[in-house]
Parts: sequence; C-alpha cells; structure tokens
Amino acid sequence: MGTERFTSEEDDVQTLYNDLADEHLQPLWELTGLLTHEPAVSTQPFRWSGRTLKKLAARSGELIPIDRGGDRRVLACANPGLQGAPFATSTMWAAVQFLNPSEGAPPHRHTPAALRFVLEGEGAWTLVDGDPLHMATGDLVLTPSMTFHEHHNPGAQPMMWMDVLDLPMVAALDAVFFEEGPTEQVDTRTDPLSSSEQHWGGGPGLSPVRHLGKNAAAPHSPLLAYRWADTDRALSRLLDSDSSASETTLRFTNPFSGGDVMPTMRCQMQRVLAGNQSAPRRQTGSQVCAVLHGNGVIHVGNTSFPVESGDIVVIPSWHTWQIRADAELDLFSVSDAPVLESLGLYRETAE
Amino acid sequence: MGTERFTSEEDDVQTLYNDLADEHLQPLWELTGLLTHEPAVSTQPFRWSGRTLKKLAARSGELIPIDRGGDRRVLACANPGLQGAPFATSTMWAAVQFLNPSEGAPPHRHTPAALRFVLEGEGAWTLVDGDPLHMATGDLVLTPSMTFHEHHNPGAQPMMWMDVLDLPMVAALDAVFFEEGPTEQVDTRTDPLSSSEQHWGGGPGLSPVRHLGKNAAAPHSPLLAYRWADTDRALSRLLDSDSSASETTLRFTNPFSGGDVMPTMRCQMQRVLAGNQSAPRRQTGSQVCAVLHGNGVIHVGNTSFPVESGDIVVIPSWHTWQIRADAELDLFSVSDAPVLESLGLYRETAE
Amino acid sequence: MGTERFTSEEDDVQTLYNDLADEHLQPLWELTGLLTHEPAVSTQPFRWSGRTLKKLAARSGELIPIDRGGDRRVLACANPGLQGAPFATSTMWAAVQFLNPSEGAPPHRHTPAALRFVLEGEGAWTLVDGDPLHMATGDLVLTPSMTFHEHHNPGAQPMMWMDVLDLPMVAALDAVFFEEGPTEQVDTRTDPLSSSEQHWGGGPGLSPVRHLGKNAAAPHSPLLAYRWADTDRALSRLLDSDSSASETTLRFTNPFSGGDVMPTMRCQMQRVLAGNQSAPRRQTGSQVCAVLHGNGVIHVGNTSFPVESGDIVVIPSWHTWQIRADAELDLFSVSDAPVLESLGLYRETAE
Amino acid sequence: MGTERFTSEEDDVQTLYNDLADEHLQPLWELTGLLTHEPAVSTQPFRWSGRTLKKLAARSGELIPIDRGGDRRVLACANPGLQGAPFATSTMWAAVQFLNPSEGAPPHRHTPAALRFVLEGEGAWTLVDGDPLHMATGDLVLTPSMTFHEHHNPGAQPMMWMDVLDLPMVAALDAVFFEEGPTEQVDTRTDPLSSSEQHWGGGPGLSPVRHLGKNAAAPHSPLLAYRWADTDRALSRLLDSDSSASETTLRFTNPFSGGDVMPTMRCQMQRVLAGNQSAPRRQTGSQVCAVLHGNGVIHVGNTSFPVESGDIVVIPSWHTWQIRADAELDLFSVSDAPVLESLGLYRETAE
Repeated sequence: MGTERFTSEEDDVQTLYNDLADEHLQPLWELTGLLTHEPAVSTQPFRWSGRTLKKLAARSGELIPIDRGGDRRVLACANPGLQGAPFATSTMWAAVQFLNPSEGAPPHRHTPAALRFVLEGEGAWTLVDGDPLHMATGDLVLTPSMTFHEHHNPGAQPMMWMDVLDLPMVAALDAVFFEEGPTEQVDTRTDPLSSSEQHWGGGPGLSPVRHLGKNAAAPHSPLLAYRWADTDRALSRLLDSDSSASETTLRFTNPFSGGDVMPTMRCQMQRVLAGNQSAPRRQTGSQVCAVLHGNGVIHVGNTSFPVESGDIVVIPSWHTWQIRADAELDLFSVSDAPVLESLGLYRETAE
Repeated sequence: MGTERFTSEEDDVQTLYNDLADEHLQPLWELTGLLTHEPAVSTQPFRWSGRTLKKLAARSGELIPIDRGGDRRVLACANPGLQGAPFATSTMWAAVQFLNPSEGAPPHRHTPAALRFVLEGEGAWTLVDGDPLHMATGDLVLTPSMTFHEHHNPGAQPMMWMDVLDLPMVAALDAVFFEEGPTEQVDTRTDPLSSSEQHWGGGPGLSPVRHLGKNAAAPHSPLLAYRWADTDRALSRLLDSDSSASETTLRFTNPFSGGDVMPTMRCQMQRVLAGNQSAPRRQTGSQVCAVLHGNGVIHVGNTSFPVESGDIVVIPSWHTWQIRADAELDLFSVSDAPVLESLGLYRETAE
Repeated sequence: MGTERFTSEEDDVQTLYNDLADEHLQPLWELTGLLTHEPAVSTQPFRWSGRTLKKLAARSGELIPIDRGGDRRVLACANPGLQGAPFATSTMWAAVQFLNPSEGAPPHRHTPAALRFVLEGEGAWTLVDGDPLHMATGDLVLTPSMTFHEHHNPGAQPMMWMDVLDLPMVAALDAVFFEEGPTEQVDTRTDPLSSSEQHWGGGPGLSPVRHLGKNAAAPHSPLLAYRWADTDRALSRLLDSDSSASETTLRFTNPFSGGDVMPTMRCQMQRVLAGNQSAPRRQTGSQVCAVLHGNGVIHVGNTSFPVESGDIVVIPSWHTWQIRADAELDLFSVSDAPVLESLGLYRETAE
Repeated sequence: MGTERFTSEEDDVQTLYNDLADEHLQPLWELTGLLTHEPAVSTQPFRWSGRTLKKLAARSGELIPIDRGGDRRVLACANPGLQGAPFATSTMWAAVQFLNPSEGAPPHRHTPAALRFVLEGEGAWTLVDGDPLHMATGDLVLTPSMTFHEHHNPGAQPMMWMDVLDLPMVAALDAVFFEEGPTEQVDTRTDPLSSSEQHWGGGPGLSPVRHLGKNAAAPHSPLLAYRWADTDRALSRLLDSDSSASETTLRFTNPFSGGDVMPTMRCQMQRVLAGNQSAPRRQTGSQVCAVLHGNGVIHVGNTSFPVESGDIVVIPSWHTWQIRADAELDLFSVSDAPVLESLGLYRETAE
C-alpha cells in the first residue's frame, strides 16, 4: 500500500519522483485518466434474468435460513465492471429478497435508503417505523434513510421482490450508520392499508392538515407505498391524453414537496406500447431498471438485451439507451438523478 | 378631499397643524387606531343563506340576460362591515354564478385569481386556457391568475356555483389587469376529462415527466380540478386512521410543489362527524366558507349561525370560530393564509 | 350603512335589486371599475419637500413633547389620493421622525415592519431587541416585524430621519398587533458597532457559523444596518465596472438568504451621474423614494418634480418614472415589490 | 475479474454459490462490512508539511516544464489510506500548484469544481471565464464547475497555492467532463479588481440589480474571490462581539443565495486565539484544512499533528478533531458538507 511510484529516465526527475512518493505526493503531469472528455464509466451495461433470479432465490430459500447472516435472504446484483463489489452500479445496490411462508426479517435501520419493488406475487408486508405496508405486484414501497423496517410473509406462498439501495453512494461519502431494531421480534401485523396511505394516499393534491407539520423536516416522502392500480391508471390517462404518443413516463413523487421520493433516488415507470421504440436518451448517472410487464429489447450503449418481465437491467452513466417493446412494456427505473441535479452535474440528451 | 385637519386649543400648535395639513402631513401623536393591540377588523361575521342565494340567482336568471354587463351573471356577497364594497371579506370576493341551460360566458382573463366550488348540481363546464373542466357537486375548479376562462352549460337544468376571487387583495396592491379573450365565442366542448387531470390527476405522488418542465415556473397548481369522489374518500381515510377523531381537514395542494393551489388562496375541506364540535380556533386572515353537506351551527366570534348545505359563511381575521355538526358536516373554506404565511404575519391559536 | 342599492327602470328588476340589497348581495352586471384593463390607482405622484419637512419637524420639536401620544414625534406623509388616510401609498407609510438632544423614544414592537433612513445628520441610536445601531447620513436601519425598537439622541443637535412602514398592507390584511416594551425606560447605550454588524457585517459572502442556525427561521435580514460608506463604495465599483453606464442600482439584501431585507419591503439605492437621465421604467406596486444627494427632476406619470436632497417622492403603481440628474443624484427607494413577486403579480417594463 | 466467489463446506450451498457467481450475484449473508454501525473510513488522518510542499514544488518548477502534461504543474496529496489514488480524501482532491515567473497555464474547463487558496506569496492571476482575479496570501479564489480558468504569474517571484477539487466525488458519480479552452494562449491581464468583485464585492448585503437575473440559475457564487483583508476583519469583529470566546468560524457564502460557495464544497476559516483549544467536534464527511497563520497541534482521531503555517491536514469522516493554538492560528477548511446536508446524511457532534 502507499502512494504510487512514478518513474523517469532523467535522474534528477527520478529523484524528485522518489521524494514525492515518500511524501505521499503524486505529480499531476504523470497522471492520466483523471479529467476525461466524457465520463470514464466502470459500471457495465448488464441484465440479470428474472427467471434465473427466481430459481436461485428459491434455492436460497431452501438452503439458507433467514437468520444465517444479517437477517435478510438477499442476492445482490454484482456488476461485472465493479471489481467484484456487490453493487449493481457505481452508486446503487440492487438485489432480490426472498421470504418463505411464515418467515420474517426483524427490524433494523441504516442511513442508506432503500426501496422495494414487487415484480411478481403478493402477500408480504413491510413495516416502516411500525406502519404495515402490504406488498403486491407493481407496488413500490419506500424504507427511507434511518426508518426502522422489517418484513414478514404470512401467506402460503414464498414471496420475492427487488431491493434498491443507495448504499455505494452513502459508503463513498463515509456516512454509513446501522442500528438493530428495538426488538428482535418481527411485527406480523397485516393491516390492509397503512397509516401512510390513510394520511397521504387519498388522492392527487389532497394533503392532511394535521400531518403537514411533522413532515416539513423529513427529506423523504410521507407516502410510503405507491400502488400499481394508481400507477397503471395514471399511465393510461397520460397515453390517452396524446393519441400520437407511443410511450410515456411517470415519476413517483413526494406529495408534500412535489420532489423525488427520497433525496438520493429517483423512481419512474415508463410504458412503451407494443410495436414501438422509445426515443433514445442518455444522461449522467446510472439506472437500475426492472421489467414489470411485457417483453422486447433494451439497447444500452453497444449492447442489446432481450428482456421479459422480471428482468433487471443496468444502464450506466452517459450510455445511450432505448427500449423496443414487442408486447406492451412497463419498465420501473431507479436512478441517482436527484443527486446529480442537486450538485449541478445532471446532463441529459434526447438523441 | 385632502389631508385630514387636526385641531388644538393651543394657538401655535393649531398653526402648526394647519401648516402640516397644507403640506399633506399628519401628526402621529393625534392619530389613533393605527397600531392596535390586536387586529381592528372591519369584516363582519356573516352568513348568506343557500336557499336565498338559489332563489335570487334563479330570479336573476329569468330577468337578466347573461350579456347585460361583464358577460357573467353573478351575485356578489357584500359584507356589511365593508362600507358597501362588493367584497365578502377585506381580501376576498365571494359570489354565486348562475347559467341557464345552453348559456355560456365567453373567455377573458385577469390578474385576480379565481376558483369555483359547486355546492349543488352538475353539468356545466369551465374551460381554462381551452382545457374543459366538468363541474359537479363538491368539485373544486381553479382558474388561476391570467388564465383565460369561460363557462358553458350544455344541460337541461340551470347550474349555479360559488366563485371566490382574491380581487380585493389584488386591487389593494394596485395590480389588477384584465383582457378580453381571443374570441367572443364560447367554446362548448364537453370532454369528460380535462388534460389537466389526464396529466396530473392519476394518483397521489404520480407526476408526468414530460409536463414537469412547463410547470416549473407557474405559481399555481397544474391540476385544475379536484373531484369530490377523491376528496370524500380522502376524508374518510383520514377519519378511519384515527378512531378517536371527530373531525379532520384536508388541504387542496399543488402536486408539483406540495404548496397551496394558488399563491393567494388556501382551499381546505373540513369534515365534522354528526353530534360533534370542532376545536375552537382563530387565525389571522379571513375565510370564506361554504357548507357542502350537513347542518349545524357555526360560531364566529360572538355570533352563531345555524347552517345547512348551500350556506356561505364569512370568518373575519382573529375571530374564534367553531363548528357544531348536527348532521355530518362538510365545510369547504378559502382563506388568504398563504399570503399571511409568506409575509411572516400568520398566527393561529387552538383555544 | 350597508350594501349599496342599485336602481333599474324595469319594475321586476328593481324589485330584484331591492331584494338583493336586503340580502347583502350586489349584481355584478351593475358594478364597474372592478376589473380594469390596467390598475386603477388612487395613490398620486407626490413630492414632500425636504426643506419643508425639516422646518415642520423642528417646529414640532419645539411645540410637542415626545410623550404626547405614542411616544414618537412623527409627521406622516398623507398622499392626497388616499382620502385623508395618513399613508404615503396604498401599501406604505412614510414619515419623518424628530428627536431633540437627550430625547428618547421608549421600546415597543408591532407586526408592521419598519425601516429608518437617515437623510441628514448623525448621532442618534436605534436599539433593536437591545442591539444599539448608530444612525448617520445615508445609513439604512431595519426594525423588522415584532422586534422591540427604541430610539435615543445623546448628542447636542436634533436628529431627524425618514421612517417607512408596511402598515397599510398589514392593516389591509387585518394582521396588526402591537405591544409596549418590557420597560418604559429608553436604553441609552451608544456602542459604536452593533452585534448585528459584528456578526454579519464583516464583508460580502462572510457568514458567522455560530449564528446561522438562529437566523434560519427569521423572515428578515440578520444584518440590521447598512452603512453609507459601504453603499457608496459599492455604487462606485458598479459604475467603474461599466464605463458606458450613466446609472446603477444596488439592492439591500439579507446576507443569510440573498433575498430582500424584509418580506414586505424592497430597499434599493440608485445613482444617476450628473447630466444623465435614468431609463424610463414602470412596475406594479408603489415606491417611496428619498433623495440622499444631488438634485434634478423626477418624472412620474405626467408630473415632473424638481428634487433636491431631503425630498421624499412617491411613485404609484404602473406609473412610468424617470430621473434626470443635474448634479450626481443618489435616490433611496422602498417598494412593495417582494409582495407582488411572491404572489405572481409583479410586472416591470423598461420603456 | 468478475464477481467474487464464496465458499461453503456444505455441498449444495457450495453449488448454489458457484451458480450465483456465474450469474454475477452475491449472497448478502456472506458479505460483511457493508452496513457498519459507524462509518468504515479508508481516508486516514494525515498532514503534509508546508515546508516540504514548498521545497518539492520549487524543485518541480526547476525540473518540469509547465506544459509537460496537462498544462498544470501540480503535486497531488495522495492519502495513504486510499490505495494509491491521488486523492486527499475519499471525496476531495488537494494539491499545490506552482508557477515560475512569466509562466502561464492555459484555459480549460471541467465539471469538477475547483478552488484556490493562497498560503503564501502574491502576484499571480487566475482568470475565470475571462475575469482576472488577483491572488495573494489568504485569498480564496473559486473556479466553479464548467467555468473556463487559466493562471499566469507576471511577477518576478515564483508563486504557489493550494488547489482543492471535488474530483473524486464527481468521478464516483460518473460525471467528469473536460474541455480545452477556446484558445491555447494564456490571457495575461493583470487588472487589480475583477468584474466579479466590482459587481458583488461592494459590501455585505449589497447586490447589483442588473446582475441578479443572470445569477439566478447558477449553482455557484457570483463572487469569485474572497479577500483576506475582509476575512481577517470579519474574524476580528466576531471575536470582539463575544469577549469570552477563544475561537470563531466564518463560512464563505454565495451572496446571491446565502448558501455555500459551490454545491459540493463548503469553505470556512476558523481562528483560535493563542493558548486556547477549539471545542472537539466530529462530523460526517471529510475535510481538507490548511494552516494560514500560527502554529500549534491538530488532533484528529488518535493522531496529533504539530502544525505551522503552510501545512495541509486531512480530517476523515466521523473522526473527532480539535485544534490547539500555540500562536494565534487561522485554519482554512474545505469540506463536502453541502453534499451530505442536501442528502440528509450530515451529522455533527460537539463533544
């Protein structure tokens, strides 16, 4: 370990280089690759097959008890460009989590923010600071930074969903904190509707006066679950509003502020009608996408991934991407765009 | 006209007072009532009966053609405390507007912002910058500052609704501008769903990505209609979430920003369950309220108004008010609270 | 008193009008002057002569003891357009305040915000929540909403300055509150530098870390005095930066937020070089201006006022105004522009 | 390269692990060190001696022509905890830059933001988008993201200063863009005062009206130079305001918004009086500090660095730090706190 050592054929320069290395200094004029004309991206375009994820998660469910380590039965997507790190992109963790019937994952909390997206199945609950959120296909559930969260599956079928966390970013900022929950017991309540939705889920532009104050300081959405029925209807309405449109995109937003659901991750759902291609786009920052419905091809940079429902696809920063829908395709995506925007680093081109 | 003249029994002071008056100056030490310990409010607590409003509006509908003056058949609530001005409160205009079958009110726009609230009936349309908004009982429809708006009633029944405008406030700021519409023709479209709702009304926390940019600069909500079905469900959910609650209040908000629907007026709906009283409250700024459903009594300061659906009630600034619901009561209210808040002048006490 | 009564030659319409009046309703179609194409402004362009203000203030100083009423010896500018109200414009109070040697005005506070601008002389102090602010020619001193303030003159010469308050606006919003100070004694401290300036006056873009938190919630500037030496140097630098410029304008801003010094009033200083005219401008909202140095002519609407140092001039809403400087002219101005901007009602044209 | 492979003594688990690795998946229950109770920080506390930096920079000045690579003669501080990367902390680059008399570094621009702080000497200029900023001891000069910048030294003495960039953070976000300047020529203007300072440096709370609009969109300060004379006076005033204080800290802020000078880096200057210790503190995020004046000891975690003027010290995230001043000590610091704050990840404790 230590400072890299540079070499020169000139004796006095070599002496200088040695002295610099001894003092933990590096000569800029020998460094390359620091200030590149465009982003030098390690994250690779990649697809994890939904069928494979289901099979491997189920095998883990048979072989690995839930409490073996970390109280979570999770398979992490490890991007092949990231030197073996268990991260889907340079800034985001993506994984599938699997719960057998009657299993539960006890409460804990941490500074990295998480979200859960259900690609198939229903019947598990996530509790966020004690508020029970039912999980079913197409639902987005938030477990924001430093909220206690736990999961349980009271049903007869196993349940799997996708987790996305901003863990690599929070780790890069040296700001990871973690706490066990106040109890090791899993709270197995199965309320059909969370308090979060009772307060904030009544309808667009309808805010509960009594709960405005306590959300003023929170950096995340007070609405913790976004239901597929709403998302589906909203997508349909958007497409109905413009008969020439062959695609549309919704952003999941914080009803208290209108901004992103959490300060580090933007969540969107894009629908491309059968037989159409989305406009090619590229943007700074990376994306984790999951195919909820439909099939087709996702082009990312120079790679093309045939996709079907359940697949997870990574789009690295500044890579042009485009969707071709063979059957009507609904694509859920998570990106680090709010961070890039807040730092003045977001760029997007429609090509 | 001119500067007020003050008198003194001391000769040299009287000479000074005369000289001051000649120079359009007034001696502060002779003025009273400027800096009062609490607000000195001219607006009086008042109730306009819904039954009376309906009868008088219908008679106007028989006697007065829609184009007699200003292209609007409107009866303005004139608060008896305001020296004959046609204003409901010191800062707000409130009125009922009446359209016979097949009548229309052609487009115009103005800096004062307006909203329409339907207390009974359905079947008229308001078009805002050409976007047709259906109007039915319990709906709130916005016609923000400087948006062209027109109304028409294609049905077989007359239609009446309440208008609330910030006209007194905008006039006090010397900022009233008015323009006729680009055409005198009324647009008689009857689309069941507005573009505004197709884009922004899909569900709580669901924002259309393509329409985010163009709403960034607007100071008002991109969602222009708030439907009673949503409001009713949201109120029910809020009351369900707390079994000990006997009242609850929703705020209508701008889904793009989470703030009030327009910068000058706050819109809320309060439900008080039958047999209960709301907590007494008072606040700076005035309110125009309308009873949508139910009956009971509204106490305002030292006055008590028996109320039923259709009644309009004014709550002046810093007057304690309380609702007693004999039958479950839904009260729609408009206030100037966003202005007081933005200027640091809002105070509220729950007593 | 009560609702205005309208008349008609048609009997049944007259009956309707009578019934409307009885019910405190007014027919919109008979009303005029409500929605005007451009603002209908009562405030008139006006100038109060500085020489006259000085003479009359001095006579008041001889004749009227400071404690005769309200503990302030103040002459209020009463705009001849405002029906005898003691207001300079529809939204602002302007006045001169006079203190004899050794006199003091004891502490009080109120929701209307005030500022003091010194047109000539020096040697008085204003204390804001106990912090002593020295007052000298060209200084701007703030006494924000609900801060206790008191004045005293320890010197050998009388002292006069201009007061501007947002009183008409706060009164129109029914939000005036007033409190006597905790003591009737005037605090006669004469510290040369206020805490406010020690904390926030060190230089442009230099903020005290320990004082950031407690200013986060305040709607007004933590810096309470803006010194002429700084303002003069800043104006000179601005003019130096553009050799073709014949005028320039500075805005006094809140160093904590970059915004206006108080939420209701914008303060600016404009310098026009000798022999030049400023560009003609008009804007919504009214202005109170005071000539600090120089002389020339101020055109407002169709009126032209010859001005010299000490004069106070009112520019009503939407009136074109222009300055001709015979000698280099420094014009201090206060406007209600922050209110109009926050409500989406600000318009400005350079003609 | 590729996904890390895990091992198990159970055959079927080992088979699962192999299959997971083949599919670029990792089992969370085998991973450790991801969610730590407190930040697991690689950046080490470190000090680079100012005397050594000066000597090595001067030797580079003799041996290395300015145009050898990258047009900048820069020695980068390489933190020994960061595996040979040329970064001072996990999020910040720190370096010294050296210019011989008559040398210049031609214009370029990049998304990583930079600042320059002069620890000793004077007489070079940095031009930012063509605006010439003189550089002298104690001055802070900003070259914000995507502004063209160049340097030249017209004097008779060599000149050295410290550079700090957010390069590691921008690289971690895959958002580095770089462009050569429009010309390879260095602009050798030597104006004594920049336009930036003429417009925005006039005094605290004084903003140029004509330049407000064009700065509204910029995420960085329009004031590009903060002069030592101002900083010194402001520190003195702060200490004068509280006779019991033995230390004080100023933040360099954006006069347009009151916020940090750039969205990624917070700049502060702390003064500790001779014979005193600062309060121990710790916070999330890292800091690069430079001793401008004085000497003493800086404790960081379990390490204590004797320091004197010219030294550069790194404080890693969540390490307690404290300053002991033997002679009155002025410490300039740069941190990533604005990023942590905007993401809801900032924590600070005074111990």
